[in-house]
Amino acid sequence: MKNQQIKLIKRPFGKVTFDCWNLENSLVPEPNSGEVLVRNAFISIDPAMRGWMNEGKSYIKPVALGDTMRALTVGKVMESKSEKFKTGEWVSLGGGVQNYVSLPESEITKIDTDFCEPEVYLGTLGMSGLTAYFGMLDTGQPKAGETVLISGAAGAVGAVAGQIAKLKGCKVVGIAGGSEKCKHVVENLGFDACVDYKEDKLRNQIKEVCPDGVDVFFDNVGGEILDTVLTLINKKARIIICGAISQYNEVRPTGPKNYLSLLVNRARMEGIVVFDNYKNYASAIDQMKVWIKDGYLSTPMHIMTGGVPAFPEALNQLFAGKNTGKMVLEC
Amino acid sequence: MKNQQIKLIKRPFGKVTFDCWNLENSLVPEPNSGEVLVRNAFISIDPAMRGWMNEGKSYIKPVALGDTMRALTVGKVMESKSEKFKTGEWVSLGGGVQNYVSLPESEITKIDTDFCEPEVYLGTLGMSGLTAYFGMLDTGQPKAGETVLISGAAGAVGAVAGQIAKLKGCKVVGIAGGSEKCKHVVENLGFDACVDYKEDKLRNQIKEVCPDGVDVFFDNVGGEILDTVLTLINKKARIIICGAISQYNEVRPTGPKNYLSLLVNRARMEGIVVFDNYKNYASAIDQMKVWIKDGYLSTPMHIMTGGVPAFPEALNQLFAGKNTGKMVLEC
Repeated sequence: MKNQQIKLIKRPFGKVTFDCWNLENSLVPEPNSGEVLVRNAFISIDPAMRGWMNEGKSYIKPVALGDTMRALTVGKVMESKSEKFKTGEWVSLGGGVQNYVSLPESEITKIDTDFCEPEVYLGTLGMSGLTAYFGMLDTGQPKAGETVLISGAAGAVGAVAGQIAKLKGCKVVGIAGGSEKCKHVVENLGFDACVDYKEDKLRNQIKEVCPDGVDVFFDNVGGEILDTVLTLINKKARIIICGAISQYNEVRPTGPKNYLSLLVNRARMEGIVVFDNYKNYASAIDQMKVWIKDGYLSTPMHIMTGGVPAFPEALNQLFAGKNTGKMVLEC
Repeated sequence: MKNQQIKLIKRPFGKVTFDCWNLENSLVPEPNSGEVLVRNAFISIDPAMRGWMNEGKSYIKPVALGDTMRALTVGKVMESKSEKFKTGEWVSLGGGVQNYVSLPESEITKIDTDFCEPEVYLGTLGMSGLTAYFGMLDTGQPKAGETVLISGAAGAVGAVAGQIAKLKGCKVVGIAGGSEKCKHVVENLGFDACVDYKEDKLRNQIKEVCPDGVDVFFDNVGGEILDTVLTLINKKARIIICGAISQYNEVRPTGPKNYLSLLVNRARMEGIVVFDNYKNYASAIDQMKVWIKDGYLSTPMHIMTGGVPAFPEALNQLFAGKNTGKMVLEC
């Protein structure tokens, strides 16, 4: 039994290149007293990973050079030196890009797999879903009848954000890349419409499906898309800055040159980080479980294969927008 | 008796050039029933004027080509066909860049000149002061002990915004252009410090006087200054977008490339337009009058001479940052 690990050995400048990573084999760790040994089954692949690779102040410490890449995972307990966990139980954890990890019991959470596949706890019932939940409800404050626009609509966060806005009685429009994704967003996620940013005239496309303007914009993409939407917002609009996947690989990121639309429209642009809501995670997950059971919330997954060694390629595919739904790496 | 008027005859592209204006002489208007004829005494010179000259959707209709330039004014009643006003009374109004105007009584407000000079109703007790009041208190929500940073600190709005934050128990730091202005901001307005953006290393200068970071940023300037401050904000910071005088004359305005600091810091950037608070103007003015009487709020004015014909030059001087305090044109 060997433990494959992906280590960060170089910080990227712009796009992430394969020489940032090293695949190493180590021994499977021995759990100490109070610890639990877990075999990761799925590794969450997240846009936020790009930020964790950079040096400098952020909302979380950078991954140190030489360390195993940080990742959220779900897995099975292999050996438990904690009274709280039994061998064979499914758990979620910050397990890293590796096969095995031993962590103190306080850093591990049991998950309920009778109810759904374990990997859903990396998507709708994990950080992606929680980000969407708190960002849309607390920061976006959508009111019934308002128009809610979501970029990265086919992605892990956008999909949940849009479905929640729909549950609140809003008109919900997505922005996604390519006709396949747009079809998925409307047919499987129940958005009222979805426009394809890879087609021409994004502004006209949005205007056509949002004739009353945009009241809430949940932005996962940034760049040109944010700038375009700024020209279409309504008075007192709320723009949720959840991410900017178009910018993370840019050496010289661009700012929204139309930001003065915030002034003209007395609008608000606010950044969110899911961790701030940790006290309310449990109640949010309970609510989302009800929505899933009642068929209001679908939980599309994009499962990559190839195990730990396939991580560098999976991350690049995420940034190339190849996923529909939450991307995870089976390992 | 002739009525000099400045008409907008061309929309500017970038910087305002003199050929955008025409000086015309017309007859002094005759007030109709219910109207009041006013002789403007002071014309307010505002950064917002640049926006009113542009075509396109904004928070207020553009000035039409051929029309007298829009401006707030204070003046004296010359002739009244309203029972509410008497000849010789001081009033404030949207009198335009001209000597005389006749308006319905509903568009004219009496002002109390026993208490201060009439032109103060274009500054601290006018739109500038009200913008600062509502922007700082309602949108900025400064708490005692927080650090509040203000760009355009020597200008009409910045001066009031900073003094109000001081009254709320904050540490208040200004940004202004040139050592004379900075001295004024500290000595006459009572800011704790003021940094000169014309000097090198603005970021280091701010860091030195704001060692605990920035909790509230009241921005009148935009551009490089906004981008620099974004790198210095604290968690849950509030950025009030009041204006962007550095950008109004730009053909290609730049956006804040560091806007993702909003995400990292869960911060908020919000645009304000004073008109939204019109129901609360009276109570705000009452409060500011008390502060003026008690010596907590100083009301610096920058009075230009030359009358109506000097308007184009006065506006250019405003954009060149030549004023300290509220700029008005005596006419």
